[in-house]
Amino acid sequence: MTKLNELTATEAARRIAAREITAEALVAACLERIRDRDPTVKAWAHLDPERALAAARARDSATAKGGLGLLHGVPVGIKDIFATADYPTEMGSPIYKGNRTRADSAPVGLLRAAGAVILGKTVTTEFAATTPNQTCNPHNPGHTPGGSSSGSAAGVGDRMMPAALGTQTAGSVIRPAAFCGAVGFKPSYGTVNRTGVMSESESLDTIGWITRSVDDIALVGAVLMGRPAVDRRSLDRAPRIGLCRTHLWTEAAPETVEAFEDMAARLAGAGARISEVKWPASFTAMAEAHWRVLAFEFVRALAWEWNNHRDLMSAKLIATCEIGLAHPFEAYCADLRHAMACRAEYAALVADYDALLVPSAMGEAPAGTATGDPRFQSLWTFMHVPALTLPTHRGPKGLPVGTQFVGKFHADEALLAVGRWVEAKIGHAWTRG
Amino acid sequence: MTKLNELTATEAARRIAAREITAEALVAACLERIRDRDPTVKAWAHLDPERALAAARARDSATAKGGLGLLHGVPVGIKDIFATADYPTEMGSPIYKGNRTRADSAPVGLLRAAGAVILGKTVTTEFAATTPNQTCNPHNPGHTPGGSSSGSAAGVGDRMMPAALGTQTAGSVIRPAAFCGAVGFKPSYGTVNRTGVMSESESLDTIGWITRSVDDIALVGAVLMGRPAVDRRSLDRAPRIGLCRTHLWTEAAPETVEAFEDMAARLAGAGARISEVKWPASFTAMAEAHWRVLAFEFVRALAWEWNNHRDLMSAKLIATCEIGLAHPFEAYCADLRHAMACRAEYAALVADYDALLVPSAMGEAPAGTATGDPRFQSLWTFMHVPALTLPTHRGPKGLPVGTQFVGKFHADEALLAVGRWVEAKIGHAWTRG
Repeated sequence: MTKLNELTATEAARRIAAREITAEALVAACLERIRDRDPTVKAWAHLDPERALAAARARDSATAKGGLGLLHGVPVGIKDIFATADYPTEMGSPIYKGNRTRADSAPVGLLRAAGAVILGKTVTTEFAATTPNQTCNPHNPGHTPGGSSSGSAAGVGDRMMPAALGTQTAGSVIRPAAFCGAVGFKPSYGTVNRTGVMSESESLDTIGWITRSVDDIALVGAVLMGRPAVDRRSLDRAPRIGLCRTHLWTEAAPETVEAFEDMAARLAGAGARISEVKWPASFTAMAEAHWRVLAFEFVRALAWEWNNHRDLMSAKLIATCEIGLAHPFEAYCADLRHAMACRAEYAALVADYDALLVPSAMGEAPAGTATGDPRFQSLWTFMHVPALTLPTHRGPKGLPVGTQFVGKFHADEALLAVGRWVEAKIGHAWTRG
Repeated sequence: MTKLNELTATEAARRIAAREITAEALVAACLERIRDRDPTVKAWAHLDPERALAAARARDSATAKGGLGLLHGVPVGIKDIFATADYPTEMGSPIYKGNRTRADSAPVGLLRAAGAVILGKTVTTEFAATTPNQTCNPHNPGHTPGGSSSGSAAGVGDRMMPAALGTQTAGSVIRPAAFCGAVGFKPSYGTVNRTGVMSESESLDTIGWITRSVDDIALVGAVLMGRPAVDRRSLDRAPRIGLCRTHLWTEAAPETVEAFEDMAARLAGAGARISEVKWPASFTAMAEAHWRVLAFEFVRALAWEWNNHRDLMSAKLIATCEIGLAHPFEAYCADLRHAMACRAEYAALVADYDALLVPSAMGEAPAGTATGDPRFQSLWTFMHVPALTLPTHRGPKGLPVGTQFVGKFHADEALLAVGRWVEAKIGHAWTRG
């Protein structure tokens, strides 16, 4: 029998609504897992077990009344850059030690309104950038969980909770989800309201989330997008998949190359129509343009911190800010226009496919604390298109290796339908054994 | 001799840097004006004279050291939806009574870093939407100052301070600036970082500012955009101006029609090449699409407030939220794509002009408290293009009537060069007498 903390969000919500389990029992199972494992994994920045249990009991007392929200009683972890009315929001920086806000951020407000139990705040890197905090990879604590949504990915990958919120400005949802063996989703830019969420780069920041199934991605997404019901559409035919190695292919580690080729073969074997995508030469400049845009906007977003608390910023953050300060406004505008041109070219490129198969990350999670290379994720963040990673393979050290699928702008449900088809036909690494 | 509170920001900064006046004397003059006039105008939500004077004295003690910021010692008013580390941020709503934040919003952080003295927080409508708060039009307290940047426009128009920050999601900078006889500027979408500023509609919200001259618009803009110096470029020839009446022309009040025709004649008389712009039929749906996008995003931004404090929201705000809740996600995406198509069509339309002449508002400020019709401003907010209003005329009740010029996306300085040419050749209503 599946332990309660191992249930998917979809199954947990179904059982709670059917009164087969209580939200309190589910939350208690999650808290027990956290008690056992968090001294090693260190996924949590702020956790108040009594508050979470009280919220679960309040949900339970309302279950019999019906009219339940889509996430009634389901515990969710929140990256510590989302404002929460009941927990501090410290953003992984000593500058915000003990910081409190009046209101929930919009995504947290939507989760609560849908009945979710906010379990606590998960560890983020410093301001969701590249300087890590304490979280370890749950599959090997000597390795990084990735970042910046480190605690959200590690906690879901370690079965501490079924779902967690993250954000992606470069690769901060897809990469940690891949490193921790979870399902990660970054929707089309602009899909989920960012009010009350720390801003790193307004033209790139995208709310994403991490679960253990594609159905759970759709469930959390329905709540965050304010949809009345979950879209569980399946494909009525095998998908057309473009194999997209990108100009970064020669930098991919062997396990990423192997996972990609194995997935391509499995997709073909399952009936998908696959073909190679020609990668436009104009796209090779994207990763650098992405970084300049991010740095330009980031140092402006951090105007107060930069001018008042630079002594509490990491050297890496200061270096990023200095890149942003040195980048002229006109060059930044040119980068934005380049991005718009790339997005238009991408729309034509992907038109004949249901999704592109791309690497999730350079390889399995590196040893040490640095959160890893973001370029296999940042391409798609810059493109503003939806991206989904599935935990489909394992690397030479036994750590997870993901497969990323990217779709069309504003066609997020179509990408999830592909993901659901892949889950059914090919499965995750652990379901294949 | 000009009273210190009547100086432009440009002139004040010059005199302070030259040690001809002190920041303290300037701030004291502004506070005196406020003491005299604010019982009538009610522009201020939070004002602490001692704090402002102390900040001014701190600037004065640094003046001799040189290396001064562009706004060294210049007092600025801040709309009460921008977070400030030293003042409450109440957003015109009882839900945020006494709300405090750890940090300054990015624009305020940039102003302070440039040496500005934050004078206080100016009154906003409820959540920068349509329900007014206490501010009156400084030219006739029985009339609206416009909104949502009500206190910023009324304060600058009444010479309480040379510059103030606002935001525009529909018409919240241009309209109140026009109603209060000030110069107002909404830059291209995305120009100024919004971190720490209340979010009404992520895809529309734009930081703007209100001053009494185009040079001051450029000065504040240089600081907010992180430029090292002010661009005071002039035109080396008379501008090409498109007369753009839009499909709303038949709704314009007589004073707006008269001001528009008079300005067209004065432009031609000063040597500008003017011609009528053909308004595409596809643009007529914009004002409604704008409102749906705003409502869709607004109710999501207000998720926490909507679910916890609806009893403290005005009926008009609730009605807007209900529009947003009723608008399906797919229809919202279609509106966003319509906007992108309009922007591309606009770029072609404006290509042969330096700027378009358009009405600033339906007419002079209406009597009463309702903040006025936003459609002559929201068209350009939806287009993401820069917009500038100049106080060029007066209406039948003696209230100001503005002239709006709109430009090309990411060519904000070029629009300001047109504005500077108009100021020099035609002037403001009060400089013409």
